Amino acid sequence: MTSAAARPAKQRRSDTLHRLESDVDAWVATAAQDGGSPYLVPLSFVWDGATLLFATPADSPTGRNLHATGVARVAVGPTRDVVMIEGAVVAVPPAELPEEDAEIFAGKTGFDPRELAEPYLYFRVRPVRMQAWREADEIEGRELMRDGEWLVTD
Amino acid sequence: MTSAAARPAKQRRSDTLHRLESDVDAWVATAAQDGGSPYLVPLSFVWDGATLLFATPADSPTGRNLHATGVARVAVGPTRDVVMIEGAVVAVPPAELPEEDAEIFAGKTGFDPRELAEPYLYFRVRPVRMQAWREADEIEGRELMRDGEWLVTD
Repeated sequence: MTSAAARPAKQRRSDTLHRLESDVDAWVATAAQDGGSPYLVPLSFVWDGATLLFATPADSPTGRNLHATGVARVAVGPTRDVVMIEGAVVAVPPAELPEEDAEIFAGKTGFDPRELAEPYLYFRVRPVRMQAWREADEIEGRELMRDGEWLVTD
Repeated sequence: MTSAAARPAKQRRSDTLHRLESDVDAWVATAAQDGGSPYLVPLSFVWDGATLLFATPADSPTGRNLHATGVARVAVGPTRDVVMIEGAVVAVPPAELPEEDAEIFAGKTGFDPRELAEPYLYFRVRPVRMQAWREADEIEGRELMRDGEWLVTD
């Protein structure tokens, strides 16, 4: 592995925010409530400045896990430029999502769960912990948020 | 979402094998044995034609989960060209890994767990189920392997 110099914390925070605002897809890891069953799937999202909004079929493994456990681990970015998020999850039925949020979601992701026959749920993921690193030299200092609070500010 | 025509099964299989042979990194999702705790991390791997070989600190969340549960869900490729693998996992202490495998691992991934002070474990992940898809039009037909058997052959 080779890499440029490790980024300072402020740079990692601004890179992270840029990625949350401009990336379309994330990897969403969940676990069944009864233990030992990981699930992983790529899903599109919208970042509103405080939460990531996803949508997935209510009866999919991810939908069931998120609904049952309220916990997600989400990665944004490629494997060597990672934003890793531990999030607290709230399910939002389509009828309860503000119209504006649903329109923004459809516009960014290119699909509109409100128009599908299969029952979908939206999920809001609020980051509790965030880390950002590229390669081994950035493992140190990768912690950017803990207990929902940024460890570094502008 | 826009995409080219959906690939036929044989093409997906050959693309999948190419990715397993040439990609360096994967996303590894695991779950704690006591339920509801997903973990996710990018790790480098080597494919030997039948299993993916990973290495991670024995006492990391991924190391502990793999050791306790024997289950991983692994994604290779970017979010819109996914190879998704459900795997059965066996832990291999460094002293029990054949020298040749350890050398190949170090050569491909650029790190050699045998040289590190922190105790590492290797993990062999044998695919039980494999899927490959790019975008929504490839969801149908994404199943390539089930119960450890390819559903399509050359």
